[in-house]
Amino acid sequence: MSDAQSFIDQNLGRFREELYEFLRIPSISAKSEHDGDMRDAADWFRDRLTDAGLEAEIRATEGHPIVLGRWSGAPEGAPTILIYGHYDVQPPEPLEEWLSPPFEPTERDGKVFARGSADDKGQLYMHVKALEAHLATSGSLPVNVIVLAEGEEEVGSENLVPFVKENVDDLACDYVVISDSNMFAENMPSVLFSLRGMAYLELHVKGARSDLHSGQFGGPVVNPGNAISKIIASLHNADGGVAVEGFYDDVLAWDEETRARIRSLPFSPDDYKKDLEVDALGGEAEYHVLERLWIRPTCDVNGILCGYTGEGAKTVLPNKAMAKVSFRLVPDQTPERVADLVRAHIAKVAPAGVTVEVVELHGGRPWRTNVEGKLVDAASAALEAAFGTPAVLQGEGGSIPIVSDFEEQLGASALLVGFGLPGCNLHAPNEWFALDAFEKGIGALAGLYENLGA
Amino acid sequence: MSDAQSFIDQNLGRFREELYEFLRIPSISAKSEHDGDMRDAADWFRDRLTDAGLEAEIRATEGHPIVLGRWSGAPEGAPTILIYGHYDVQPPEPLEEWLSPPFEPTERDGKVFARGSADDKGQLYMHVKALEAHLATSGSLPVNVIVLAEGEEEVGSENLVPFVKENVDDLACDYVVISDSNMFAENMPSVLFSLRGMAYLELHVKGARSDLHSGQFGGPVVNPGNAISKIIASLHNADGGVAVEGFYDDVLAWDEETRARIRSLPFSPDDYKKDLEVDALGGEAEYHVLERLWIRPTCDVNGILCGYTGEGAKTVLPNKAMAKVSFRLVPDQTPERVADLVRAHIAKVAPAGVTVEVVELHGGRPWRTNVEGKLVDAASAALEAAFGTPAVLQGEGGSIPIVSDFEEQLGASALLVGFGLPGCNLHAPNEWFALDAFEKGIGALAGLYENLGA
Repeated sequence: MSDAQSFIDQNLGRFREELYEFLRIPSISAKSEHDGDMRDAADWFRDRLTDAGLEAEIRATEGHPIVLGRWSGAPEGAPTILIYGHYDVQPPEPLEEWLSPPFEPTERDGKVFARGSADDKGQLYMHVKALEAHLATSGSLPVNVIVLAEGEEEVGSENLVPFVKENVDDLACDYVVISDSNMFAENMPSVLFSLRGMAYLELHVKGARSDLHSGQFGGPVVNPGNAISKIIASLHNADGGVAVEGFYDDVLAWDEETRARIRSLPFSPDDYKKDLEVDALGGEAEYHVLERLWIRPTCDVNGILCGYTGEGAKTVLPNKAMAKVSFRLVPDQTPERVADLVRAHIAKVAPAGVTVEVVELHGGRPWRTNVEGKLVDAASAALEAAFGTPAVLQGEGGSIPIVSDFEEQLGASALLVGFGLPGCNLHAPNEWFALDAFEKGIGALAGLYENLGA
Repeated sequence: MSDAQSFIDQNLGRFREELYEFLRIPSISAKSEHDGDMRDAADWFRDRLTDAGLEAEIRATEGHPIVLGRWSGAPEGAPTILIYGHYDVQPPEPLEEWLSPPFEPTERDGKVFARGSADDKGQLYMHVKALEAHLATSGSLPVNVIVLAEGEEEVGSENLVPFVKENVDDLACDYVVISDSNMFAENMPSVLFSLRGMAYLELHVKGARSDLHSGQFGGPVVNPGNAISKIIASLHNADGGVAVEGFYDDVLAWDEETRARIRSLPFSPDDYKKDLEVDALGGEAEYHVLERLWIRPTCDVNGILCGYTGEGAKTVLPNKAMAKVSFRLVPDQTPERVADLVRAHIAKVAPAGVTVEVVELHGGRPWRTNVEGKLVDAASAALEAAFGTPAVLQGEGGSIPIVSDFEEQLGASALLVGFGLPGCNLHAPNEWFALDAFEKGIGALAGLYENLGA
């Protein structure tokens, strides 16, 4: 066992306690009342980078700050890796569905439950501890390291791309390493070959000058609640596909090898349904469930609000309706083109008598990587050593929009290696992170740095 | 000028002040936190009946109390009229759209703005003042009178029908008079020939065990937000009609005389659109706008709630969605049959992978009257005398479910004569009542009692 691994094993209790401090800070980037918590989280993370032995600083942006750490003492010829993660979290609502408070980390059944435990504070912090393990035991790292933690991943990373562009020289690196995804299953570590992108829209349907009495005006007055339902319903066809004209034009037809590899992974639709407590699945029936999740695009309602939603029967004909609708994209779709297509679609289907405004809340490009090469090999070997089982290649249905930007701006290849587990309630109540994955994963990351430096 | 009319003219300022006291009590029947206000409003109204010269009492129900007033000293052979109204009001939300507080009556442009000013406290109180005018000036009334004011009209009048059934002898009467509707236009008083009924449903769509990450689960998981939109959209056909099988089976084909009378009323679709600030109307294009409002049934969304509706972009795949959807009914539809038809429709169109629960929140039958006879004649003459212009016959798109029940239980004919004005924001922010209609209407009601007693 390496010195770094021994150090990790001896300090796991402390690592967990430190992580729980991080998780107690409600760093919700979407809500301005948490701006102070965002600064606290950034300060806290910077101090932990310093403690680990890096030079660390806070860099202001027009939104939430970026934390940068750096260590540049690797042997001549060693590569530089940029470790990217985010210290912001999703809003915790609906609060009443949490079994323990979202910002009070609570251990149950080998898991820690807290908002941000998996997405992404827990995974980001594993890197800090893997770096500390090397520096504390050997006084150095096998690679040069830049740590970049942003506070706007959950709200579209708007200020990150300009920051990267303005600091291309400072951030110059050979590889970008990101841990903000899941393993394929418990004790089945994985490396990602693709991410879906996203086009997130907000629709505002406006009708008459004010809310009206549904009896005195119902009939000739076009109801924005009915209209928004018609618009949303029109986005899908009867086969479970997206009915927006041109939507599939840019969708990559994946090679048979990739599709066969996906279909060969251990997966039971029955267990999947049972876990979700549903009696049927939807979407494009001609694709395997994992293909629907990884390599096919989607259209999902994220929220709808219209009229009176309180107790009892209010007979109002509302004058406005709002919906949040997002599309997960696959190579080679772009959020800009999808937003344009959806606008054109809505213009065709929206009934007369209402106006519809389409606001683009945020977008991100899909991503895929070359699975043959040093980066994936180094990760696979480190994962197998730490978990005692070979790593698999998998896709990911979620989006990390910055990945494509990093590759493009820095000319570096990205490696996505994550330690969450399916069912860990990302973006939902009762988010959790497995303590076993936290512990083994720190060792895997320490091994990854070694393999990349060799 | 009669003594009663002179008394009214001399006391108008006091009548208004009293009404404003009534309007300041936030008697919102739908919200249990206002139960105390409901009792205060009932007590206040009982005391004003006593002040006017009636015997008055509060009668408990399983919900909000009923206020009863009585005066039985009319000459032998004079009829008994039951005056029905309600002292409860709709919730005032959205509060931010009120120009003055909903429970602080504020006069602007010859109107008083307050929740309940038109629906129905203002109109109910006009009867009390018309009764007072007779009793104060002649010590008697030309008819025997029962005043019945309930506190649950806005939530379905659930306890009123049982109350009427249990008190049929006490409530025995020849006519039921109700002022809870509008005039056709400013200075165009009217008598109603029909009311629409209602079937008010709440739909609950349930998907997976919990909210999910829209990236990690979007595609194969059926989204309750998309599903409820599909269900709501399916309720209408492309022609603006209701697409529920069997929905039109019981819809009366009105006689040509009634339809011609409706179409002959002064009505400008352009002015109507301008007033509502919309550029087009919807619904059944083959019917006149007033027909769509009065003699054709509808389906309107009253509210939808699903997922995340706050600031920013939360990428959640929600696990539930709720919608309030109500149908305005016309003779001879019944809420029970319509609810059954809608349930059957939803069972056909709901996608697999979600469950749908349909809750009947409340229902009321539509109503129509014989427009030839003493009751309508007495009202028309009194309205013409007070307003100086002939009254017209009109339909009403709203619902007063109790009307059919009164007629059936008490064997009495109902007269619906109202003094609101189109555009007075019933059930919406900035509800108002015209002071001119309040003043002339009290005289008209005093005249109506005389004509019925003659």
